[in-house]
Amino acid sequence: MRMYDLIEKKKLGEELSTQEIYHIVNGYTNGEIPDYQISALLMAIYFRGMNVRERYDLTMAMRDSGDILDLSSIDGVKIDKHSTGGVGDKVTLVLGPIIASIGVPVAKMSGRGLGHTGGTIDKLEAFPGFNGALSEEAFINQVNNIKIAVTGQSKNLAPADKKLYALRDVTATVDEISLITGSIMSKKLAAGTDAIVLDVTVGDGAFMKTKEKALELAKSMVDIGKRADKKIAAVLTNMDEPLGFAVGNNLEVIEAINALKGNGPEDLMEVVYELGSQMIVFSEIETDKVKARKLMENAVADGSAFNKFVEFIQAQGGDSSFATDISKFEPAKYVVPVEAQSDGYVHALKAEAFGLASMSLGGGRETFEDVIDMAVGIVLNKKVGDEIKKGEPICYIHANDESKIKNAMEMINSATVIAPEKCNHMDLIIDIVE
Amino acid sequence: MRMYDLIEKKKLGEELSTQEIYHIVNGYTNGEIPDYQISALLMAIYFRGMNVRERYDLTMAMRDSGDILDLSSIDGVKIDKHSTGGVGDKVTLVLGPIIASIGVPVAKMSGRGLGHTGGTIDKLEAFPGFNGALSEEAFINQVNNIKIAVTGQSKNLAPADKKLYALRDVTATVDEISLITGSIMSKKLAAGTDAIVLDVTVGDGAFMKTKEKALELAKSMVDIGKRADKKIAAVLTNMDEPLGFAVGNNLEVIEAINALKGNGPEDLMEVVYELGSQMIVFSEIETDKVKARKLMENAVADGSAFNKFVEFIQAQGGDSSFATDISKFEPAKYVVPVEAQSDGYVHALKAEAFGLASMSLGGGRETFEDVIDMAVGIVLNKKVGDEIKKGEPICYIHANDESKIKNAMEMINSATVIAPEKCNHMDLIIDIVE
Repeated sequence: MRMYDLIEKKKLGEELSTQEIYHIVNGYTNGEIPDYQISALLMAIYFRGMNVRERYDLTMAMRDSGDILDLSSIDGVKIDKHSTGGVGDKVTLVLGPIIASIGVPVAKMSGRGLGHTGGTIDKLEAFPGFNGALSEEAFINQVNNIKIAVTGQSKNLAPADKKLYALRDVTATVDEISLITGSIMSKKLAAGTDAIVLDVTVGDGAFMKTKEKALELAKSMVDIGKRADKKIAAVLTNMDEPLGFAVGNNLEVIEAINALKGNGPEDLMEVVYELGSQMIVFSEIETDKVKARKLMENAVADGSAFNKFVEFIQAQGGDSSFATDISKFEPAKYVVPVEAQSDGYVHALKAEAFGLASMSLGGGRETFEDVIDMAVGIVLNKKVGDEIKKGEPICYIHANDESKIKNAMEMINSATVIAPEKCNHMDLIIDIVE
Repeated sequence: MRMYDLIEKKKLGEELSTQEIYHIVNGYTNGEIPDYQISALLMAIYFRGMNVRERYDLTMAMRDSGDILDLSSIDGVKIDKHSTGGVGDKVTLVLGPIIASIGVPVAKMSGRGLGHTGGTIDKLEAFPGFNGALSEEAFINQVNNIKIAVTGQSKNLAPADKKLYALRDVTATVDEISLITGSIMSKKLAAGTDAIVLDVTVGDGAFMKTKEKALELAKSMVDIGKRADKKIAAVLTNMDEPLGFAVGNNLEVIEAINALKGNGPEDLMEVVYELGSQMIVFSEIETDKVKARKLMENAVADGSAFNKFVEFIQAQGGDSSFATDISKFEPAKYVVPVEAQSDGYVHALKAEAFGLASMSLGGGRETFEDVIDMAVGIVLNKKVGDEIKKGEPICYIHANDESKIKNAMEMINSATVIAPEKCNHMDLIIDIVE
């Protein structure tokens, strides 16, 4: 099998066989096939796509390139939740403790990642002492004991994806449905859960900018999950403006704590309840989605969700007094309002620019060597649809480096649209693919 | 300027600016841009193409990546001839001496190349003592003195093309019109002549399999030549069956000598006269194409073309007695007929398979390290359109290694179509682009 012929085949729009796809994925992972042939193939795939059978084979070949977790010693139906990424996305921090408190086992592997803010593990390390690197045994025991554990990835999951993603990232071949499907689903399948709920974000701050594209991706991933005999559903959620009010590490942790105490922003809670009720249905603890949602609302209202969060932080060695007293989180040195330049209604708070502004303050990683400043970020004062007066704050910048404020302010101003006409709040749940 | 953005731009079908194209070509040539980004770009170009302006810039950037020859000290209008390659193509060996004898300066740089047979320099080295590596001064003096010199490429012409071609060759991105245009025309423009005549071959043994594709390439190259202020024309010639009767190095040299003596195959002479008359018109020695052809026919008939060939071989130190007595060429050890398996008419002698059969006997190079066996090859006994009887030879295999004969014979048999219906001889000149 010559790689040249496989590139040519895909270039001409033909279907690659199962054997051919495994040859490509294995050959690239073990270094036998050079980057320059794979990047040509990736670009050919961008133009020609892959059918469902090819996508499935790609996903399985990538899954099989490394370890596959065995979660069979955890009681109950194991469910993973994955988001395609957004700005102000603290869903896992809120959702995990709620459903764990209801009895759904939450066994979450989480990365650190690059982006506007740190990953879930980074955020949890806001609690002094929190151990984000559990042994496999400790991880499984904790899930069995208290129904929730979150740890950084210890095993070598889908190394083919790491290598392919790095190449896609420098050859402008990231945005192709088959390749995105393979990348996400290979890791989800390697993570060994029985069910998967996907949060496919749509809009300015999301990877998929249009509903059409997001729906295509959601369907593709759900197709692959079903072929792999997983329970799977995808929820399309709006990411045109940041989710909730807070963008930034500690700021988001605080917002999550407040949400678990019953004071969550409406949009954030809508996403949490939609994803969570789907997860509860998959867990078979409650088969009716409306009732499942009710269970979640009760868990927040009666404090059991928050108590579960405290228990979870303690179980992993974290200082949970920060959860009961959020004033313990060290604030940023400067908190500066960004004021509206006219009267009217907020029509847009373009999420991506808010994310980049937070990152420019030091809140995210551009490279894996970057150190995250946990205190910085942005807290919105208004959401799309709100009325605003000239001079009233759109949001507050939390900064530790004074010299970075002006630039962040400019980014925010040019990402904000205020107009005289009334404007609706955004609908959060755009579609559901099952 | 980030290479990532340029890949993305072309991927989306946008036009690359002059500056961007120079950045890519220079960055790749000097090693600043890695293979894997260029191969992704090449595949994007395969799908999106380049417009005439981009092609021109690509060609000029590649030309400018190395030396540009200065032929100004040669008297008269300097004309280059280039073929996109075929099987049994000995046109230069016949054409050069004919038009030189008429007074057209033939200053030919020739490569060795890979392929079914050696290049023109390899073939000329069939004459013992022939020096295919002239100094620039000796080359120019010889053209001024006797109107013809052929030498291997001494200067560093279009190094960007060498690097790009090597990458295209392993990433299935060879067959794209813009890239082919840039590759051929950058070298032609670096070769410094005033005019260019292109022989664009079409058919089974050619790179362009259909008239449509060949016409597209011819128009593209002529467009670029004109933009670069060159006199230029392209002749589309048939390459469905081998040109002439001989395929193989010495065999083709012998056929060329016979042609210069007035005994050339009809199809070969048709191509020679068509290209040559165009070259004479560009030289302004004769502005009427019909009269130009007459001059060529006379030069063959009165012996001046053959005498020029002898003079040329001698001038470069070759033993011209081989030209006057072709029995001096050492024959292959085995000459074996391939016999027709039925009565009828020859409908096809698929050129590519004949080329590969000759190569399998040792007549060509697969890698630059291969040594060519000058004596081996194939001599046709019939051409498409000829009547043939069962048992009559289709052709003769000339081999030095007995073990290779059977395989070559099978290749030839499966490339030969004999059917009961009558069939026309092939038209050689398919189209002319000026």
